[in-house]
This record gives sequence, structure tokens and C-alpha cells, in this order.
Amino acid sequence: MSTNSFGRLFTITTWGESHGPALGATVDGCPPNVPLEAAMLQHWLDKRKPGQNKFTTQRQEADQVEILSGVFEGKTTGTPIQLMIRNTDQRSKDYSDISEKFRPGHADITYWQKYGIRDYRGGGRSSARETAARVAAGGVAREVLRALLPELKITGYMVQMGHDVIDRATMDMTEIEANPFWTPDAAAAKRWEAQLGELRKSGNSVGAVVEVVASGMQAGLGAPVYGKLDTDIATAMMSINAVKGVEIGAGMGAATLTGEENADEISMGPEGPIYSSNHAGGILGGISTGQNVICRFAVKPTSSILKPRATITKSGENTEIITKGRHDPCVGIRAVPVGEAMLACVLLDHVLLHRGQVGENQGRIG
Amino acid sequence: MSTNSFGRLFTITTWGESHGPALGATVDGCPPNVPLEAAMLQHWLDKRKPGQNKFTTQRQEADQVEILSGVFEGKTTGTPIQLMIRNTDQRSKDYSDISEKFRPGHADITYWQKYGIRDYRGGGRSSARETAARVAAGGVAREVLRALLPELKITGYMVQMGHDVIDRATMDMTEIEANPFWTPDAAAAKRWEAQLGELRKSGNSVGAVVEVVASGMQAGLGAPVYGKLDTDIATAMMSINAVKGVEIGAGMGAATLTGEENADEISMGPEGPIYSSNHAGGILGGISTGQNVICRFAVKPTSSILKPRATITKSGENTEIITKGRHDPCVGIRAVPVGEAMLACVLLDHVLLHRGQVGENQGRIG
Amino acid sequence: MSTNSFGRLFTITTWGESHGPALGATVDGCPPNVPLEAAMLQHWLDKRKPGQNKFTTQRQEADQVEILSGVFEGKTTGTPIQLMIRNTDQRSKDYSDISEKFRPGHADITYWQKYGIRDYRGGGRSSARETAARVAAGGVAREVLRALLPELKITGYMVQMGHDVIDRATMDMTEIEANPFWTPDAAAAKRWEAQLGELRKSGNSVGAVVEVVASGMQAGLGAPVYGKLDTDIATAMMSINAVKGVEIGAGMGAATLTGEENADEISMGPEGPIYSSNHAGGILGGISTGQNVICRFAVKPTSSILKPRATITKSGENTEIITKGRHDPCVGIRAVPVGEAMLACVLLDHVLLHRGQVGENQGRIG
Amino acid sequence: MSTNSFGRLFTITTWGESHGPALGATVDGCPPNVPLEAAMLQHWLDKRKPGQNKFTTQRQEADQVEILSGVFEGKTTGTPIQLMIRNTDQRSKDYSDISEKFRPGHADITYWQKYGIRDYRGGGRSSARETAARVAAGGVAREVLRALLPELKITGYMVQMGHDVIDRATMDMTEIEANPFWTPDAAAAKRWEAQLGELRKSGNSVGAVVEVVASGMQAGLGAPVYGKLDTDIATAMMSINAVKGVEIGAGMGAATLTGEENADEISMGPEGPIYSSNHAGGILGGISTGQNVICRFAVKPTSSILKPRATITKSGENTEIITKGRHDPCVGIRAVPVGEAMLACVLLDHVLLHRGQVGENQGRIG
Repeated sequence: MSTNSFGRLFTITTWGESHGPALGATVDGCPPNVPLEAAMLQHWLDKRKPGQNKFTTQRQEADQVEILSGVFEGKTTGTPIQLMIRNTDQRSKDYSDISEKFRPGHADITYWQKYGIRDYRGGGRSSARETAARVAAGGVAREVLRALLPELKITGYMVQMGHDVIDRATMDMTEIEANPFWTPDAAAAKRWEAQLGELRKSGNSVGAVVEVVASGMQAGLGAPVYGKLDTDIATAMMSINAVKGVEIGAGMGAATLTGEENADEISMGPEGPIYSSNHAGGILGGISTGQNVICRFAVKPTSSILKPRATITKSGENTEIITKGRHDPCVGIRAVPVGEAMLACVLLDHVLLHRGQVGENQGRIG
Repeated sequence: MSTNSFGRLFTITTWGESHGPALGATVDGCPPNVPLEAAMLQHWLDKRKPGQNKFTTQRQEADQVEILSGVFEGKTTGTPIQLMIRNTDQRSKDYSDISEKFRPGHADITYWQKYGIRDYRGGGRSSARETAARVAAGGVAREVLRALLPELKITGYMVQMGHDVIDRATMDMTEIEANPFWTPDAAAAKRWEAQLGELRKSGNSVGAVVEVVASGMQAGLGAPVYGKLDTDIATAMMSINAVKGVEIGAGMGAATLTGEENADEISMGPEGPIYSSNHAGGILGGISTGQNVICRFAVKPTSSILKPRATITKSGENTEIITKGRHDPCVGIRAVPVGEAMLACVLLDHVLLHRGQVGENQGRIG
Repeated sequence: MSTNSFGRLFTITTWGESHGPALGATVDGCPPNVPLEAAMLQHWLDKRKPGQNKFTTQRQEADQVEILSGVFEGKTTGTPIQLMIRNTDQRSKDYSDISEKFRPGHADITYWQKYGIRDYRGGGRSSARETAARVAAGGVAREVLRALLPELKITGYMVQMGHDVIDRATMDMTEIEANPFWTPDAAAAKRWEAQLGELRKSGNSVGAVVEVVASGMQAGLGAPVYGKLDTDIATAMMSINAVKGVEIGAGMGAATLTGEENADEISMGPEGPIYSSNHAGGILGGISTGQNVICRFAVKPTSSILKPRATITKSGENTEIITKGRHDPCVGIRAVPVGEAMLACVLLDHVLLHRGQVGENQGRIG
Repeated sequence: MSTNSFGRLFTITTWGESHGPALGATVDGCPPNVPLEAAMLQHWLDKRKPGQNKFTTQRQEADQVEILSGVFEGKTTGTPIQLMIRNTDQRSKDYSDISEKFRPGHADITYWQKYGIRDYRGGGRSSARETAARVAAGGVAREVLRALLPELKITGYMVQMGHDVIDRATMDMTEIEANPFWTPDAAAAKRWEAQLGELRKSGNSVGAVVEVVASGMQAGLGAPVYGKLDTDIATAMMSINAVKGVEIGAGMGAATLTGEENADEISMGPEGPIYSSNHAGGILGGISTGQNVICRFAVKPTSSILKPRATITKSGENTEIITKGRHDPCVGIRAVPVGEAMLACVLLDHVLLHRGQVGENQGRIG
């Protein structure tokens, strides 16, 4: 199976480089008869699109998605859906000086060591532009989920920038769309705005933590033991550029809990089991409980900074590099719609897998 | 592809329940002519084996592995290797009262909701006993890696129990084998011994963080963009029972760094590139740099505790449950050899994948 | 994915050598709550079992299948089902002289050239004993199909031995169980009995053609373009030992037809479309029509014959070999239950795949 | 894994419909540093291109392939290669009358029954235009094979049209390029020209058999037991539109042979084993012997004929249909380059798989 493919039944295969003519995703296994048009996908691409505010790269990409196959008269046909996004603002000259030097923190050196050849323009295949294809594919997944699980809602937001963590006590999900950080904490957004302004001016960057939540979940999604729902979420999130850690529910903090604290106690509610807490992040034994599925991932600071860093050339000479060009001081911001898209793909895949193996939930309680 | 399979070229498929007659792993894609006998695998299984000290379950399992196929006259033949471990100490009666009640924090309720049937004895398929099969399979991977990459070394150890983190300044890798926690911090081992004794007596449990490191790495392992080395490590670790978070290099802490801090600067050493630091955990753009590969995972506290917890029955009635039986107060301890085994499987898989696609590293520096 | 695995949702992974301690199949993706016990699988294994009459190898194998996992209280649990068959009558001495010489027509030489090591006892992994594992796995598929598609019936039979083809005009399906050739043509069975007796006495062997038919089919199974139903059937059948050709419907004979002759005309019947003929073998564009699915495969004559054949040794010397031992003069006979088992696996896989992607047939006619 | 993907390490995923804006193939797992440009692929597409003589559809398609990714400065980079072919001559009106009626022998009815929606224009996804994407992808495989196995040569040709079979005694491979049937029998080409002229005039069509041979083979390619070389070839060929049968070596005729006749005897030649015959088609136990790999497939007659055929409408009414439009009277002709392309993909995949698992052939003879 292609290492550029993801998913079991609902599969996406992404392709393309930062500065090639186009990039995209082949989406397969999509259920038929789901209404789909490019505008539905464009909605999510626009959320991720660069150049929208001063905290994202000033590269001007229209990121217009075209549907080349798999849709007929406005509906999916069940055959492969090809989503293509042309690269329009490529400005290759910005990157000409990096053909010889490896940028620290970038994949320049490892692609070279692996393949002995690399498209050095803008990071080539390792560029975060690849995530545009994921967002488009995730848009397809969302439309199918809307048809199959109308109550499901997937929401991503930033919960930490640098050392500054949001205040969960005052979280307000309606704030997410109201600030450039997609964060539910308006006060944090204000602080971050000031901090990031400073960092940007000084040519520096900073990391972030993004949380993505699925509410309105169905119980029973996921499969032992390498196709667990949380395993597939970890795969999905860790595959996003710059991600260095993934958490489900209590996450790394689970290490600090006792068994007594960690037990999400169960009681019977009017519509099924309810839980006293959600340290599990909505997943037990790799299978969804019906609670909210909660994951988080940490995004490292952009490696492209205006500070000179020591590096070497292809021929092994020591040198320095400053990565000019147009870069995001906090890539965590634009990772929000990417994380949402990946969660949508994982959930749809498991909805279809479950339907395939089991048909419908067979275990009734009460 | 089976959701109980892992890997692309070097694949493992595990099977079996906690209280069935046996469990095991089918290992396929193994290179031929590698010396292999059961004793080599038994070495690692003994490390994971229960009942070795007071901090692990008192269940007495010999965990004797048998090789049923794929090995001829002491060498691998390139055909599937079947590894079987019989369950000998099953004591089904210990678990008889959980056939009706769902244990909080366990997969009891989700397996029921998904499948409408579950082997409730000892958690059935969701039992951590499944990890014995992983350890056996990882033992095969280790023997092949020994032949292909003789300098590679994989070492796991506990770095945190509850809130108590080791002191990295005084880490001593030779201590790892000298304490029941597989930790390189002898002082921490002493503290944890006391703490865990308390917890065990009170019928409680606690979480932990395990770190696994591969040294002597080859550069160029991993493949964009869903077969990244770090992605596959995240998949491998998150699939282990009770794991709630996975980190590569700086991990979740990457969020707190600036780009300036995070850049692992490169200079030319006598045998190739050397790095000023390793926030990347030895992986850039999903491909290994040749530095140590560093990952960590958090293991939640054992859900089986002697404290009564609220729960419901299959018929939806509210009740309480105390999970008697023989359980580890800190499953993180026995997760150490499991994490090592999974990393061995991931690395071997990528060694073979790289050899398949590229043949040998093509990009020389200097 | 393991090259010893087959299937997408309903997967089988077979393992084991002819003269190792055991062989078997790991079956995954099986729907839960399907009644299953070893005796149900034994029924099909007994059909394939050697030593039943003078036309099959006199090796005495009980071929007793054990279910080691995935079944609880007589029902499938949805987790991997391990099926193990111990090798009991191994008589390694029969094969001792072939450790140095390669038997023509066998995989001895190619396994050696590929792997540089081979279990030469009885063909090792390349032995037709591997098909016992397929028959066991196919038995699981049959039980699930019985639950999901009660009208589906899978029937295999021999239609040709050597140059002697059955008379389709007088085919009588009730004859199949009444002769040692599983053929619906009683007259052919008589002729073959005489012919095969001759061949066996002279130490020779002969090829055969087996046909497998599925009636009571559901329309809509199969998926473009590499997961076509006929493609998966071809994969399944060609993977059986000694098979050299696979046909669907008109098969190779389709080359001789005109478009006018080949068109299976459609009209509306009381319960849906009916067809004037079935040159398509029940499959159009890779998707089932609801007609009978018809496939055939040719099995080459057993390569183990008592006539001396020229060959070489491992060290490259010219020599001769006579393959003594206990062999079938016409392996086509025992291929009948194997072909049935493989068709059962393919059909169930596509039933689950279809349910996963589409849910239920969406295209109603009339 | 997508059902529109093929291959294990060298993978192709095709997409697109006959009358959509474009179709193509995503090729992944390609070794890096292989010279590649669009013209190299165009060479093979031109061979398959419609409208070249009176025996192929008069649809005028330029079939210009564009490389959108995975190639940098004229060489493959090891990342996904997107090959896109725009549809230019779509003439949708030709097909407008088939939106309600199902054409016998076509996938119209099964796509409808499966998905409840279909792109009826020109067969949509089930159109043989899909094979253009395979030919492009096969062109990539050929360039890599040229680099890795310079002596390998893949040649396809027609060996039968209708009942008329070529004379193997007078085969001349240099004739293949000299006639519109890609056949090595010039006399047959003449006869077929006359026959096909008749059929075309009468609005009828006819089937054919295509043979594809790989010479200059490496021994040791293929893997037990579901990844056999012959199994993968059967998968590849049966997945081509209109194929109803696949044969390896002696093929269906193997049924008629005795073991004595079928044994390809082995002796030692100057450069390794040589064989007295090649009934095996160059494959034993699923692994290549180094002899020529020989496969054949039967292509049914084009279902689109000018004779009226009985059929039904979507609403279940009986009616008739004549398929006007521009169609090949013998699609076997254009299947020749498609079969070659598929064999190239299979062989490259196994070269990479073998290198991955085994490294290099380990079993030396003599």
C-alpha cells in the first residue's frame, strides 16, 4: 500500500509538491449518492488558506479545489474522487539559495539522505502545503458524515501557544470563529496576539497545542488491536507536518493519575450510559464509548526563522542559513483545520468499517 | 487488511484472548537465513512476564513461546513465522462476576456495544496479555535487526511514575536492569518502590511514562507522508493497551519552544552530520536523521482497582464494582519491553521498505 | 500487507509448512455472533482430506482443526479466529533424498533461488497441504454467508480430466457427492476411474479443470477497478497450488464469440432482471449481476511422478530424480473443496465491503 | 486499501471517468533518481491511442499525459507521481440515449444496482478509457525496470481473434509492429483484416486472445502464497476491462497434460539452470525461475454493437437497444499495450518486494 495513502475503506492518497504545477488527493471508498460540490470543500480550504492575517504566511494561494472525477450531477458515484489544487504563487526565486544548504528542522537533509534527490523548492513534498490536500479530502469525509451521522460535530481549536495555556474554566466555543487563533478563550487570543506580534518582528516562531473534539459520537467505532480508534487518530495526527506529540483524553497527563482518579464511572442515563468524567477521551480498548472523542497534538515552532542557524551544505561544509521567505510564525494556527480534516477521515473510515463488519451496533444495554 | 495486523513489509498479526487456550503472532515478510530459535524470543518474554515481583500481577504464566512455522534448522526461511504462547494460569472463576457488569476504564462496555458479544474472562481480546504476542514478534525483529544493522540498539525505560519524574542529569543506563521499574534513575526507583507499595496496599494504581530510544540509527528510514517513521511509531505505541499519549523528541513540550530554541543546528562531523541538540527525536519530515530516535508514551493507571466504582449492568441497572483478581498497580512497568518490541518492529519494517524502494541510501553528504 | 494474507475486510492469513508441527489460518474481520464450532469446519476439511480413496495421496492426516481464538460460547466474537491443524503423519524419511536435488515442476528450485534456504521436507511452505488452512478458513466464511445470504450456495466439481470433458447436457448436480471425482457427470466419473487407474499404475499423473458456481447471488457485489469481483476470484484461484489458468463465465472461449453471441440479453422477470444467457459468468464490470457466478480453473498434473526426470543438484550437477512418496495422480480432485473455500472467502469479503461502502443496494430497478 | 489501487510497494491508483474532465494514475513507491519525462510515457499511450486505424474506435483523443508531481529536473524523486490525461473528445450527445436503458454486456446495470447512481456517459468509470491510466503508469514501471533489470523485455501480441489462432511455428516477433493487430503472424494479420472488416461492416464485434511475455527475467521474484508472481499477474490481467480468462504457461491446457509431459526438466547451463520446456510459464510455486514469464488473457467481444439487443430500462420495462457511437470491433487489439503495462507494474513491484525482504538472491546454484 502506498505510504501516501491513509485509511482502510475510506482512503485518501495525497500527491504533489509545494512548487509543482498542482497537488491533490485521490479519495476512494466514498459512499455513493452523497451531495458534493467543490464549494463545500472550498469552505474548509479557505479556513486553512495562507495569507489571511498577519500570523500566517503571506504567500498568496487561491487554493481553489477542482473535482476531476467521482462526482456526477452533484452527487458522489462511489468511484475515486480526484481533488486537484493548482499551485499559483510559487515564486521559486525565494528558495533558490536553499538548493545547496540544508535548513535545520526541515526535511531537507533527510530527503537528501534517503533519496539522493529532492525538490528543494519550498520543501517539495515535505512542505506543509501538502495539508491542503488533506483539508479537501476531509471536506469530503464531512459531507458523508453529515449524511450518515447527522449529530456528529468536529471542532478544532488552539489550547496553548508557547507556554501560555487557555483557561478551560472560561472556554466559549462560540469564540473560536472570532479570533485568528481559532481558540475558545478570547483572553488568550488577546495575549497571543501580542506575543506573536513580538515573535514575528524578531524573526522567531513558536509552537502550539491544538485540540480536536468530536461530539455526537456513535458508540462502537474502532477495532482491535492495530485499528483502534485512538491508534488511527494518533496515526492521522502524527502524520501532519511539524506534529511532535499526540494525546487522547487525559493524554500524557494520564501518567499522573491514580486508578481511582482515572476511572470514568458509569451510570445509566435516559438514552444510554453516561459517564462521570472523560479521562478516556471517549475511547476504551480502542472503541468509542459515545462520549466526546478528544485528541490533542503539539505542533513545533516553524523551523523557517530569520535568525541565522548553523548548518552544512550538500558537499559537507559548515555554513549558516537564514530562511527568508514567507512563513507562519505559529503553524499551529493553520493546523487547526488540518486536524479537523484528519479526524473526519478517521471517523468516517471507522463508521464504514463498523458497518462492514458488524452491520449495526449489536450490543444493546438495558 | 486485518485490523489485527501491523507493518508493511515486516508484518505481525496477533490473535488470541486472555483466557482462551493460546495466543500468538503470525510474523511475515521476515528476511531468510536469520538465526532464530525460541530461546531468543523467550529472553524478551521473560522480561515482560507477570509475577516477577510484587509490582506486577501475580498471575503465574510461563509464557513459553513455541515457533510453529517459518524456521528450519535454526534459521528463518522467509515464510510466515507462527509464534504461539499457551495460556496456562487462567483461573476463570476470578472473573465470573464481571460477565454482567462493565468495569469502568476497561473495554468491557465498548466491546459489548460494538459486537453484542464479548469474552468477558480477563478482558478477552482487550487484555494486556495480547502484548505478550507483540514481545515475541518484536524478538524476531530484533534478531533480524542484529543481522542487518549491528550497531542499532533499542532501550526502553520508565521516566515518570505518577507525578514523580526522573532526574535526567543523573541518568545511568546501566541502572535499568538493576531495579524493578526499568529506570535509569536509581533514586527514583527507590522513591517509586515506596510510593507503589502504598498504592498497592490501598488497592489503587498509578500511571507512568515510558521512553524508548534507538541508538546506532541509519539515516533515511521513513517515507512520506502517512508512512513517516514518527507516524508509524505513534501508531505502534498508541496501539498498546492503556497508552493515552505518544511523543517524539521534544513531544508535547515542542509547543513551548521558539523556533530559535527548537532548531537542532547541523555541523559536519568526522562520519557525517552532527547536531547541536535533538528536539526532533531523530526524525525530520518523517525520515530518520541518524541521531537517536526518541519516543515516549504515557500509560494510564490500571483500571482494575480494589476501590468500588459506580457502573452499570448489561441490562442497564446502576451498580458498583470492585475488580478483584491479580493486577499490576503500575502497568507502565511491564509496558517497557512492549514499547521496545514495537519500536523494533517499526524500525525493521522501515529498513526493509527503504531497501525495497531505494536499494541503499543514495544521498551522500560531503 | 503480508503476502500470506488474502482479503480486504474478511481476511485470512495462512501459515505453516508440510512437515512442521502445525499449519493454520488466522481469520480476521469476521462478523460477530455467528455460531461457529470446529465440527462445522471439519466437515469441509474431511472433504479435502487425503487418503480417502485410491486417487488421493495415501498420507494419513487426521486434519483435525482446532479453534484457538475468536469464538466464545459457540459464537464468533468479531476478533481474530485462529485455526490450527497439527501435522501428524510427517514421515520425513520419505523426502530425505530431495534435500539436494530439485524436483522438476516443484517450487524446490525457486524457493532456493529466492531465499537461499528451504524446508525441503514435502515441499515445505509450497506444499499443497497449505490448502487445508484455506479450507478451514473457507468454512468460517460459509457459516457467515449462511447467516447473511441464506440463499447463497457454493458448489465445486470437476468438469475435465486430461482431454476428457464432461457432457454438460446430462449434468446432474446430485451426482457430485456420489463419485470420487466430485463430478456431476456419472458417465465421466466411470471413464476417469479407469483412466486414472492406468495413470496411477504407470506412475504418471494428469491435469484437470474444476468449476465452482455460486447460486443465490446478490447483485452489486464487487468494486472497480482492481477490486472487481472477477479479479478477486482470479486472485483467489490462481493462488491455489498447481493452478495455471482461471476463467470467468465464457472464459478463454470468449475470444471465439461475436458481440452478437456474447450479449446476455436482459428482460424483466417477476423478481428483477433476468438474462437470456450467462457468458458473463454473473459479473459485469467487476460487479455481480445476481446471476450465478461461474468460474473455472485448470490444475496441472502432479509434478511428483514415478518416472525419472532430468534435474540438477544444489551444487549444479546434472542428475535424475524419481519422486517417490505418496502423491495424488490427479490433484484436481482435492482442489474442488479448495476452490469452493476460496470462492466463499471472496464472496463474503465483498458482501462486507459492499455493506461498508454502500450500506445496502441503492439501485432499485422497476 | 483503495479498490482502485494495485501493487504492494510500487503502487498505482487510477481515477477518472470516460467523460469527466480528466483521468489518471497516482504512482507511488517509485525508486528515486530514475530519468522520467512525459514523452517516455506518451510513447506507450500512443500505441494504445484510439483512432489510429479503422479497427479501433474513431474517438479522437490526444491522450496527452502530464506529470504533475514526483519528478524534479527530469528524475523521479521517490514521492508520488501524478499522471493526468485530459479528456478532450467527449461528445456526450452520443451517449444520451443510454441514460435510461442498460446496455447488455456493459456494467451499466451493475453500477446502477450497486451504487444507485452512475455516470452513464460512455460507461463512466467502467469505460475502457481507464486503461489509458494503466498504460501511463506502466510506462513509469518500464523506465524503472530499464534501470534495474536492463535485460528485461516485455512484449505483448495478439495470438487469436475469434476462432482463428496464429501459427506458432512461423511466429516472427519483428512482425508485431508491422500490422494493426500487434501479431507476430503476418499471415494471420491478413486473414484478420478481412474478417474484422466484415464484422465491422455488419455492426458486429469479436473476441481475442493476447499473450504477454517477459524475457531476460531474474529468478526469485514472487512470494508465497497470495503474493505469488502468477497470482499477481492473474489479478493484473483479470482487472482489465473485458478480460474473461487468464493463463500462465500451459494455462487451461495444463489440464490435458500428464505429469510426464508437463515436467520441465532441468539441466545445468553455462549461466545457470536451463529447462527442456516451459509449461510452467517461468513460474514455480509462485516464484520466477528465470525462464520467460508467459501469460495470456482472453478479451470478450465489444459489447457495443449495432445489432439491436433486448434489454430493460431503469424503471423495469422491456425494450431494445442499439449501441451507436464509435467502438472498436475487436478491443483485443488495444488491450495489447494494456497487458504489457500491467505486467511491467507486477514485475517491478516484485523486484522491489524481493529487494526489500531478501536484499539480493541468496540461493546460488553451483
